Amino acid sequence: MKFITFVHKGKEQIGVLSLDESKVLKISKILGHERYEDMNQFIEEATELDLDIIAQVRINEKDLGTPVEEIRYLAPIVKPKHDIICVGVNYESHLKESTLALQADLSSQKSPVYFSKRTTRILGHEEAVKGFFEIDEELDYEVEVAVIIGKRGINIPKDQVEDYIFGYSIFNDVSSRTLQKGHLQWYKGKSLDTHSVLGPVILHRSALPLPLKLKVESRVNGEVRQSSSTELFLHDIATIVSDFSRGITLEPGDIIATGTPSGVGMGFDPPRFMKKGDVVECEVEKIGILKSSIVE
Amino acid sequence: MKFITFVHKGKEQIGVLSLDESKVLKISKILGHERYEDMNQFIEEATELDLDIIAQVRINEKDLGTPVEEIRYLAPIVKPKHDIICVGVNYESHLKESTLALQADLSSQKSPVYFSKRTTRILGHEEAVKGFFEIDEELDYEVEVAVIIGKRGINIPKDQVEDYIFGYSIFNDVSSRTLQKGHLQWYKGKSLDTHSVLGPVILHRSALPLPLKLKVESRVNGEVRQSSSTELFLHDIATIVSDFSRGITLEPGDIIATGTPSGVGMGFDPPRFMKKGDVVECEVEKIGILKSSIVE
Repeated sequence: MKFITFVHKGKEQIGVLSLDESKVLKISKILGHERYEDMNQFIEEATELDLDIIAQVRINEKDLGTPVEEIRYLAPIVKPKHDIICVGVNYESHLKESTLALQADLSSQKSPVYFSKRTTRILGHEEAVKGFFEIDEELDYEVEVAVIIGKRGINIPKDQVEDYIFGYSIFNDVSSRTLQKGHLQWYKGKSLDTHSVLGPVILHRSALPLPLKLKVESRVNGEVRQSSSTELFLHDIATIVSDFSRGITLEPGDIIATGTPSGVGMGFDPPRFMKKGDVVECEVEKIGILKSSIVE
Repeated sequence: MKFITFVHKGKEQIGVLSLDESKVLKISKILGHERYEDMNQFIEEATELDLDIIAQVRINEKDLGTPVEEIRYLAPIVKPKHDIICVGVNYESHLKESTLALQADLSSQKSPVYFSKRTTRILGHEEAVKGFFEIDEELDYEVEVAVIIGKRGINIPKDQVEDYIFGYSIFNDVSSRTLQKGHLQWYKGKSLDTHSVLGPVILHRSALPLPLKLKVESRVNGEVRQSSSTELFLHDIATIVSDFSRGITLEPGDIIATGTPSGVGMGFDPPRFMKKGDVVECEVEKIGILKSSIVE
């Protein structure tokens, strides 16, 4: 099941895509109540029965839905309860290009690298990413698989991680590289407004058993820049969620971005950063395509 | 005015300390309504008139308040809307001890260092900090002045920063040093549960014009460990808020921890980390004393 947050006739709501993905079925309509105000609340409070009903209606629906052409996508989670948890350099290939581009010695790094990304509002599919070119000309893209946490937990054992996941999405970890390098820690260069893009959907975990085996690709103006597979993760999702949760409580709706493969703009010689008018597409197999245009 | 969040007769609420600080006046009682559910909402929505009324009642109160002995302090902001924004190595003396202890070259760092601290619940005065000694034996304290943002803004000019501040508090940036060093970025070692301590009060900005000139001290079991002054900031508060807000929207209730002076546990040779049963006090002149005990 692919869950979305969207705007229809001026109203923000949550829904599920029809089997052929041509229509959106509103969760409030399926369940007959408006108890779930947004995706955060749905993830936290939806029961197994709710999910079963939604799955059934989705299979049996005939002409119930709204055509996707009539809706506007928002990020599945617009306002997360916490900053986004990110895993750095989680592909060997990106570790190599980053060692060079970030002038950091990453080769001896054995444990996962974690950093966070502040956001006041996550962008959705086809919303515009703003380049703050007056303070940083090095605007970069990073396609990633995002894990959406479904259940509160701390010290989660590796073999139970799947129980704590609600689903998976696509994340563009937009980065302003001058700021990322200039403040020692990466946080500021990762946290500019509009630098977090998520969507278009959250694919429920029932469709994707761990370990994930998904192709991951990004394109700028149609040209392939990153192309890899989650099979090449240095630290797989079970490891990341289990390791990060040691001493730290994860909450429903938390977003963990699992790292990006090589081919980001800063990895080229000379670097190929994004500029006004560029269109970047982040694609993850089975989940979809997350598209953004760059504005000034 | 010193604002607090507290529990009285089982109910969590917000209040202001009486002039002699012996009593708490409930905001809902002063204003005659319960519109402000918590400190986040109060900071975001309280009007100038509300603040004037509170100031007046506070001056004229006779026997209206609840004795502070009868309340339990919570963090003034229990659940922030975002991760806590932290400024790293913002005193020359701490920069020197950290260069050694963190094995990082910090001497050439001219721009402020920013990192974040995840928290699902900030601890208040006299709540217990948990040492996760089974995963990290290097539990450390850091006394800091916290800036509480009062108004939404981006690209805030340096000379207007004060308008965007609600007030100031004391922050203990509890750190697990092995994890801080082990994951390249500091985020994980800073973000363990109970590692954020704030309070006891937020002192309204009207009492403290910028630049701040406040003594800052920490003690472990009564022994002075850190002792400095905010006059020794490498980057003052106007610079930090203005610089961080370039390209990043700050929101009411955001917490910015402004960095710690030398004398943290990892700075000693041999290091002096905290252990079960220790009592740490963080004191900032004019604001108060924030006390925590360490549990396992």
